[in-house]
Amino acid sequence: LGKVGEFGFIRKIQEKFGVSRFPVIQGIGDDAAILRQQSGQDLLASTDLLVEGIHFNLSCHRLKDIGYRAAVANLSDIAAMGGKPEALLIGIAIPPAFTLPDLKTFYDGLMEPCRQHDVMLMGGDTSASQSQLFLSITVFGSIKQGRSLRRSGAKISDLIYVTGSLGDSLAGLRLLQNPVHTGPSYDRKKKRRDRILTQRHLRPTPRVDVGQFLVQSQLAHAAIDLSDGFSGDLRHICQASRVGAEIWTQDIPISPECRSLAQDLHEPPLDLALQGGEDYELLFTAPANRRQKIEAISHSLKVPITCIGEIRSQRYGVRLKLEDGSSRKGKVTSYHHFHDTPITSID
Amino acid sequence: LGKVGEFGFIRKIQEKFGVSRFPVIQGIGDDAAILRQQSGQDLLASTDLLVEGIHFNLSCHRLKDIGYRAAVANLSDIAAMGGKPEALLIGIAIPPAFTLPDLKTFYDGLMEPCRQHDVMLMGGDTSASQSQLFLSITVFGSIKQGRSLRRSGAKISDLIYVTGSLGDSLAGLRLLQNPVHTGPSYDRKKKRRDRILTQRHLRPTPRVDVGQFLVQSQLAHAAIDLSDGFSGDLRHICQASRVGAEIWTQDIPISPECRSLAQDLHEPPLDLALQGGEDYELLFTAPANRRQKIEAISHSLKVPITCIGEIRSQRYGVRLKLEDGSSRKGKVTSYHHFHDTPITSID
Repeated sequence: LGKVGEFGFIRKIQEKFGVSRFPVIQGIGDDAAILRQQSGQDLLASTDLLVEGIHFNLSCHRLKDIGYRAAVANLSDIAAMGGKPEALLIGIAIPPAFTLPDLKTFYDGLMEPCRQHDVMLMGGDTSASQSQLFLSITVFGSIKQGRSLRRSGAKISDLIYVTGSLGDSLAGLRLLQNPVHTGPSYDRKKKRRDRILTQRHLRPTPRVDVGQFLVQSQLAHAAIDLSDGFSGDLRHICQASRVGAEIWTQDIPISPECRSLAQDLHEPPLDLALQGGEDYELLFTAPANRRQKIEAISHSLKVPITCIGEIRSQRYGVRLKLEDGSSRKGKVTSYHHFHDTPITSID
Repeated sequence: LGKVGEFGFIRKIQEKFGVSRFPVIQGIGDDAAILRQQSGQDLLASTDLLVEGIHFNLSCHRLKDIGYRAAVANLSDIAAMGGKPEALLIGIAIPPAFTLPDLKTFYDGLMEPCRQHDVMLMGGDTSASQSQLFLSITVFGSIKQGRSLRRSGAKISDLIYVTGSLGDSLAGLRLLQNPVHTGPSYDRKKKRRDRILTQRHLRPTPRVDVGQFLVQSQLAHAAIDLSDGFSGDLRHICQASRVGAEIWTQDIPISPECRSLAQDLHEPPLDLALQGGEDYELLFTAPANRRQKIEAISHSLKVPITCIGEIRSQRYGVRLKLEDGSSRKGKVTSYHHFHDTPITSID
């Protein structure tokens, strides 16, 4: 990297990804990027940090996958507002050992989901780092004025929905962190299961289509993406909307692969689903009378959408209703920075 | 920090700085910030990384000053486009030793120049870091559609201007990096000089007013802020505009304080002015017949604006015209990442 220098590197990135096209009037190569707004549109913007040793480890994550997941984490933030992702800015602080091919691999991974959603790289900043790899991604999106799905919009008696299935990403991470299983009991079926789960961790799907559909059809009141873990993210919705929630645990969608691995790990699958972060599924709330329309969206987009509970009063708190009909206060277990282990607190 | 946790910390930041007001429809506390655009406006966006050990050292920079300079670096990018800075997103990865009061000090410094320019903090991301402090700031600005001062707009026979004086910031950094002078020759006058120079390094002024005036009066063709060093930044303008430049070295504005320190350091003051980065002055080009109007702007804003050269053809290259009438190819000495020392190359 020393050979091409910072500006040489930026030029390479610019050559590869820097084609400006509407609404990006000016991309890489000036003091700031220019994103032209049509009248009647709101701009969405979100920033995400990814720090080596905290969000990823080069021992179990390949650079291509790190790039991919970094992009998805950001696209998912725009999806959770119901917006259309438009463009990225990327800040990258690069340790001495990195080579240009390393960076190319990272950018290839980063741009893969971006291309699928027609999102362009419009600028950034590049720096050396004395130790770890640091990434900072800012994503921009657009949405019809006033239509964003905010965390604060949930209303009492709204039903609570999630897309896809929960816990797969955490299950995949467990597999990546532990040595590959071998032996006679590790058959083709388990191999396939483990490949599916690790892919769900390494190549999550941002629910951009679902978010935009919910906004276009004006069905949902509030939404968030599941990035810190179901319990913690549900709590964000409840706090912002000043409401409580009843969660029907037997309805939480858990894939057969996740159930099977949970059994091998001697863990309740529900724990993986409730604590797991980085599924990048959407959690949203909508009035009960819109249930059929939501099922129609699920059907037409071919994305599972499952009703898993109901918004209750703030006084009710967050409660899990168990299979046997009993209910208990929802534990909030989610990933917090500045703690060595996830915090578990009782509501 | 472990005591309040990540979300507790974010809540503190939100309580202090998170008041949403137009054009920020949604600030901290959702998946993305919402910046409403009026019709006919372009949005400007720029991101800057600041990495401990690369951009600052906690041994010679206080956290308050690091915050201040981080904000100015970003406001200056919007100033260099001629825009009005509106809002910031901040990503911060925090090493274990940091305390809440440390962070409060940093945010106080960050928000000081923001408040002066009515710029609000509209969101961000917070993470732990195993080693260094890592900052990523994204700034948003607005400008009348199509009016941005881009690097690519310089035309042959434009005059070249700079605001303020050059080299002060590098002079101030030298003073911070070396132990304070003492002894009988270190009198009150030198103390005052050194205070001025270190303040110019620690508390630079983003030229937001000048940028906006240049756009409103449609006087300038191209602009850039001096953040990497005069020579390198001039080169950016020349490359983007496919032109050359003749620089009249005797006209480059150098403060008496910078000249005096250069003498003490046995360095030519011109070297400090041409190599020094982080002055955050504006360099811009404008047609020769607008010189009087530019002098009027300088007068009314009380900001020195000095004509220091002329845009020439690309074939001419970048040349420094010296006091004795001779000229030499301009050395490009500016700060590059991924090199141990600044690169010096001959054009």
